[in-house]
Amino acid sequence: MLKLYIGNKNYSSWSMRVGVLMTQAGIEHEEIWVPFDAFTQGSAFKSKMATLSPTALVPLLVDGDLHVWDSLSIAEYLAERFPDLQLWPADTAMRAVARSVCAEMHGGFRALRNHCAMNIEADLATQGAIIWRDQAEVRSDVDRIVAMWSELLAKHAASHADGMLFGRFSIADAYFAPVVMRLARYALPVSADIQAYLERVQALPGVKAWIDGAMAEKQFVAFDEPYRMSR
Amino acid sequence: MLKLYIGNKNYSSWSMRVGVLMTQAGIEHEEIWVPFDAFTQGSAFKSKMATLSPTALVPLLVDGDLHVWDSLSIAEYLAERFPDLQLWPADTAMRAVARSVCAEMHGGFRALRNHCAMNIEADLATQGAIIWRDQAEVRSDVDRIVAMWSELLAKHAASHADGMLFGRFSIADAYFAPVVMRLARYALPVSADIQAYLERVQALPGVKAWIDGAMAEKQFVAFDEPYRMSR
Repeated sequence: MLKLYIGNKNYSSWSMRVGVLMTQAGIEHEEIWVPFDAFTQGSAFKSKMATLSPTALVPLLVDGDLHVWDSLSIAEYLAERFPDLQLWPADTAMRAVARSVCAEMHGGFRALRNHCAMNIEADLATQGAIIWRDQAEVRSDVDRIVAMWSELLAKHAASHADGMLFGRFSIADAYFAPVVMRLARYALPVSADIQAYLERVQALPGVKAWIDGAMAEKQFVAFDEPYRMSR
Repeated sequence: MLKLYIGNKNYSSWSMRVGVLMTQAGIEHEEIWVPFDAFTQGSAFKSKMATLSPTALVPLLVDGDLHVWDSLSIAEYLAERFPDLQLWPADTAMRAVARSVCAEMHGGFRALRNHCAMNIEADLATQGAIIWRDQAEVRSDVDRIVAMWSELLAKHAASHADGMLFGRFSIADAYFAPVVMRLARYALPVSADIQAYLERVQALPGVKAWIDGAMAEKQFVAFDEPYRMSR
């Protein structure tokens, strides 16, 4: 069976992308949880992952002898291995755009990622308001995400009951699921249309299962909770 | 005909990846040069690219009505559009690894990218020695790249006269071509085997054409030349 190595569901946004993709698409897999302690050399997390992956990072997909690291190459591998699931949009042009927005996520939106670390279990609305006021680059990242989603939703979402970025659920929605969690938990201001998409994504069974796992986890890591003064 | 929008050949490492891929693979295209002036809103570069791409970045591939932005999604698009060229390795497992190393490049090696900006026309050996001495994260990035290449070259390079990472030239070599240029121009210390790969890549017709273009360009941009005190 496919094995997916993941970090803490509460914090690990890159793990979430692949976990949500596989669960939502119904790809059977064994989930192997490697808890975060620290990302320094010699930490339990790094020591464990270094035996499995050249980057010592999660997520990692293991299929027999093959180890595929990095969330984007895992998504491509799964799309090829399960062609009937149409993990990418079937239309060539839509697929090229879906890959472009995922690549944009993969390499970008650094201000949002740095200032609004994913923390599914936490209510970070107060911190979100401060970040929104002070961090122009976060506002700029969110502006681009909102423009992207608005355009895609206007174009495609009505074509399928899922109401996802390309109509039917695809890798693109899984890829932005951690951004959905950030916008929701930090309560960053978005329009009603975008708010409705946030809610649709959180209601997907594959996303809901991940959120439930994150809530049940209760393994808190101080360095992933910069805003937490006490618990 | 396919149109590829690129920035300065001397500096634009993301443009180089796609330009090298297309030229080396023999994919006919019109190259549209959008010179860097500044990356601030309202600059000539940004104003031009904003009319064409939602990210206002290069490279951008235009195929009829379809605009594909980001070097990685362009590579995937070309691999699908020209299946006979086998831009990715034909073997499933090799392809998954090739995608993993490209994804690693796409999102990572930030210290190398930040400290050793690509500058094909310049001899930066002195700066390279200082960076190598002072920047542990650059050494760590290069260590990982050298480990990756050494493993792949040992495994595959002998299988094809190209002597490339997966034997035959693939997207992976195009994707690391700007790293080849950095290691060469900053003269960072690498083993003889890696040095030989650097030379093989620079001798590929598609890379040579790009280097020749960069040398002929002579459009220098101060913010891309942090180490240049005078010219």
